[in-house]
Amino acid sequence: MKLPEGVEWGLHCAAHIAQYDDAGPVTRRQLAEQFGLPEAYLAKHLQAMVRAGLLTATPGPRGGFRLARPVDQITALDIIEAIDGGASPFVCQEIRQRGLGAADPVDCQRPCAVNAIMAGAHQAWRAQLKKVSLDQIVRSIPPAIRARTAARAGLATDRP
Amino acid sequence: MKLPEGVEWGLHCAAHIAQYDDAGPVTRRQLAEQFGLPEAYLAKHLQAMVRAGLLTATPGPRGGFRLARPVDQITALDIIEAIDGGASPFVCQEIRQRGLGAADPVDCQRPCAVNAIMAGAHQAWRAQLKKVSLDQIVRSIPPAIRARTAARAGLATDRP
Repeated sequence: MKLPEGVEWGLHCAAHIAQYDDAGPVTRRQLAEQFGLPEAYLAKHLQAMVRAGLLTATPGPRGGFRLARPVDQITALDIIEAIDGGASPFVCQEIRQRGLGAADPVDCQRPCAVNAIMAGAHQAWRAQLKKVSLDQIVRSIPPAIRARTAARAGLATDRP
Repeated sequence: MKLPEGVEWGLHCAAHIAQYDDAGPVTRRQLAEQFGLPEAYLAKHLQAMVRAGLLTATPGPRGGFRLARPVDQITALDIIEAIDGGASPFVCQEIRQRGLGAADPVDCQRPCAVNAIMAGAHQAWRAQLKKVSLDQIVRSIPPAIRARTAARAGLATDRP
């Protein structure tokens, strides 16, 4: 199983936007340039985060993206599920009801043991990511990197 | 992210083999017929479980697959990782070191915060699946389904 690369982009972009804080919205181009990402493809993921209520988008030349909620009220899980959806990586095909050994539907009213185990593991994964706020992610970024971002944000606000 | 369907096949086949217990090895064809699976494709996953030390394969007309370890010493995680590998679904591309905002390598000696968070979630997923033994999976199968399998195993052993 593999998560799409957009998950990494979304987490880093959200953390970047969070650092800009009151310096104003961050444009799609700034985000793409910051991390060397393809702008058109990044746009899709930024829009997904807008639809999920994590970012707000302001149109126009001074427009861009800001956090839609306080930084401590956005979780890593929110961002990941905005981009990749919330489905479990395990898709149960109910093979216990197929083939020569097919179980009787009356014996399959409770979810399959295998499916239940996989759902439990997915919940453990989700619970772990729900515990991590975007605020924590930003605070985990080394000070030197944060200072560099702050300097860039300063420059951005000085420009027309 | 999505797990390959082979994970479901592997878990069900291992649980099926475990139920045959002392009735002898279960052939690839029996397993494929039991769940209505494509035999040639299933073979790949059974071989992966042999390579991982979970199953033993005996060649010949009376040959087939048996558990290589006691049923309580095989975990759901063992089976899943035998089939899908043990890699995290999150592949860090170190985008913090790319683009115009590229962080200095000297500031990137510790793993990226995003990567560390994703690794933690993967460990939570693994830990959950490591807690579940194949024995527990078998015991979670409804008695009626287990009785049916036992009857089929009995038939299999009566045949030459």
